[in-house]
Amino acid sequence: MKKKVALTGDRPSGKLHLGHYIGSLVNRLRLQETYDQYVMIADLQALTDNFEHPEKIRENVFEVAKDYLAVGIDPQKSTLLIQSQIPELAELTFFYLNLVTVARLERNPTVKAEIKQKGYTDTLPAGFFCYPISQAADITAFKAEVVPVGEDQIPMIEQTNEIVGKFNRIYHTDCLVEAEALLSHTPRLVGIDGKNKASKSLGNTIFLSDDAQEIKRKVFMMYTDPNHVKVSDPGQVEGNVVFEYLDAFHANKEEVEDLKERYRKGGLGDTTIKGLLNTTLQALLEPIRARRQALCEDEVREILWQGTQRARLVAQKTLSEVRTAIGIDYFLGRF
Amino acid sequence: MKKKVALTGDRPSGKLHLGHYIGSLVNRLRLQETYDQYVMIADLQALTDNFEHPEKIRENVFEVAKDYLAVGIDPQKSTLLIQSQIPELAELTFFYLNLVTVARLERNPTVKAEIKQKGYTDTLPAGFFCYPISQAADITAFKAEVVPVGEDQIPMIEQTNEIVGKFNRIYHTDCLVEAEALLSHTPRLVGIDGKNKASKSLGNTIFLSDDAQEIKRKVFMMYTDPNHVKVSDPGQVEGNVVFEYLDAFHANKEEVEDLKERYRKGGLGDTTIKGLLNTTLQALLEPIRARRQALCEDEVREILWQGTQRARLVAQKTLSEVRTAIGIDYFLGRF
Repeated sequence: MKKKVALTGDRPSGKLHLGHYIGSLVNRLRLQETYDQYVMIADLQALTDNFEHPEKIRENVFEVAKDYLAVGIDPQKSTLLIQSQIPELAELTFFYLNLVTVARLERNPTVKAEIKQKGYTDTLPAGFFCYPISQAADITAFKAEVVPVGEDQIPMIEQTNEIVGKFNRIYHTDCLVEAEALLSHTPRLVGIDGKNKASKSLGNTIFLSDDAQEIKRKVFMMYTDPNHVKVSDPGQVEGNVVFEYLDAFHANKEEVEDLKERYRKGGLGDTTIKGLLNTTLQALLEPIRARRQALCEDEVREILWQGTQRARLVAQKTLSEVRTAIGIDYFLGRF
Repeated sequence: MKKKVALTGDRPSGKLHLGHYIGSLVNRLRLQETYDQYVMIADLQALTDNFEHPEKIRENVFEVAKDYLAVGIDPQKSTLLIQSQIPELAELTFFYLNLVTVARLERNPTVKAEIKQKGYTDTLPAGFFCYPISQAADITAFKAEVVPVGEDQIPMIEQTNEIVGKFNRIYHTDCLVEAEALLSHTPRLVGIDGKNKASKSLGNTIFLSDDAQEIKRKVFMMYTDPNHVKVSDPGQVEGNVVFEYLDAFHANKEEVEDLKERYRKGGLGDTTIKGLLNTTLQALLEPIRARRQALCEDEVREILWQGTQRARLVAQKTLSEVRTAIGIDYFLGRF
C-alpha cells in the first residue's frame, strides 16, 4: 500500500533546540517509519520576517539540516528539502494568491497573533501577510495528506484546504489534495528562565548542538522555586523548570514522581535535581552531538541536494497539473 | 551603442481595438525602431481579476499576438513574450512581496481606483491587490529602463522603483535597474457610444479584426449631436464621436478642421462625415486585417515561443543575480 504523504519542517532562523526535539523531532522520527515524509527547511518563509537579514537564514539552513540528521531523520526514509530551491513553490503561491481574498488573510488567527507578537503595524510586509498562501503551496505541491501541527497552526491547514477546494472547483480538476492536521499534544517546552517557552530569540534554550559544559551551565541556571532557599525548605514543583524538563526528558516517570514528592516535603536540594537533569540531558545529547560532529559539509550538502531534487520532481508534476487545469499550457510538450 | 530596454504589453482579456491602436500600438511601432522592446502578453495579470474565467484569457493570448503582428510589431525588432511561460517572474514576485508593506499596497492610487471601479469589497483577491508587485517583477526581470504608460499608471512605476531601491540597498547589489515612465500624451479614445472610453467590456469599440461590414455598422451607430436633426441644422463638434475619431485617424488635419467648421454652421449631414470616417477606418484596417488573416497558427505559436524563450533567458539571468544577492544560491553551479 502506498504510504501517506506527510509534510513537516522548520524555519531556519536558528539551530534547533530541546523545544524542537520534544515538540516535533521525536514525532518525525516516528512518522518517517510509516509515512512518506517530507521535511522542509523553510528558508523562504523565514525570509518573510527576516528579509533584511538573509545571512541569518543562509547560515542556519545547513545547521538545521545537521540537527535533523543528528537526531536521526533518515534521508533514506524522509525527503529533506530546501524550500527556496524549488521554484515551483513560488509559482504555485502566485496562482493561489488569486483564490484568497485580502479580507480572508486579515482574518487568519495564526497570522493575526503573529502580527501582534512581532509588533507589525503599517510595517507589515506583504510577504508575511501572504505566507499562509505560500504554506498552502508547500503543502499541496507534495500532495501532503497529513501535516503535524500544534493547535495554533490549525488555521493554516484550514486555509490550505479552502484553496484546494476552490482551485479544484473553479478549474474542474482534482489535482490538489486536502490535508489533515495531525495534532501534536506535546505541551510547549518552557525556557530555562521559566518565564516563556523555549525560544532561540529569548536565549533561554538548550541547543541540540550545545557542548557538555554549556548544557551543564544552562541546567544550573534554571529557574526553580525562589522560596526554596535551604535544602530542608519545602519546594514547589509547579513552574519549576527542572521538574518540567525531567518530566519531558527523564525516562523513568516513577523516579521523577518520587523526587517531586521529596522536593515538596523539603530535604531535596536544587543541586541534586539539577545534577540528575544534567546527567539525563547529557546522555540524550551526547550521541546527537557526536553524530552531528561526524557529519561532513559535503555529505550534508549532497543529502540536501538529493532530497531537494526528489521533492522538486514531485512539485513539478503538481505544478504541471495546476497549469493545465488553469489552461496556460500553451506550449504543452515543448516547455 | 546598446539600445535601451523598453517593456510594454497588454492583458489578454480581449482582442485589441482602435483604442489600443491609437493609445499604444502606434507608439510601439515607433519604439521598436530605437529600443530593445519587450512586448508582454500579461496573461497572469489578466488572471488576477479573471481567475474564474481562464478560458477567456487563454483564448485571447493568441488573438492579441495576432493583433500585434498584424499592426506591424516586428518579431525581429521586438521580443514578444507570454508572461505565464516565464516562471522566473512569479519567483521574483515572491521575493519582492517581502519588500512592500500591506499599507503601501493599500495606498497605491492606481489599484485603489481599480478596486473601486471593479466594486471589490471583501471580495478583493490577494493576487489583484498585489499585482503592482508582480508588475515590478516584470519590469525588473528584463531590466526595462523605460515603460510607456498613461498618466494613471505612473504610481506603478514609482512602486517598481521603490522595490528596486530597497532591494539593491538591503542586499548590497545593483542588479535591479530603475525604470522611467515614458508618458503617453494620447488622450483616451472615446467609445462609439460617446459616453465612456473605448472598452471591450462596454461593447463600444471597433476591433482591429472587425470585418468591413462590422466597421461600417459601428461607424454608422456612432453618437454624434442629438440636436443635429436635419442636415441644415447647426451641429456640435465637441463630444461628437465621429469628429473625435476623425481627429484621431484622419491623416489630413486641415480637411477635418474644415469639416468641423461646416458642421458647426449647418449643412453637413451625419451621413457624410460618417461616410468619410468609414472610408478612413476601412483604409487603415483593411491591410491590418489582411495581414492578420494571412498569419497561420503555427507561425504565431513559433514567434511567441521564440520570443518567450529569448525573454526567459534574460529573466533567468536577473533571477540568478537576485538569488545570489539574497544569498540563497546554496547549490551554485549545480542548480
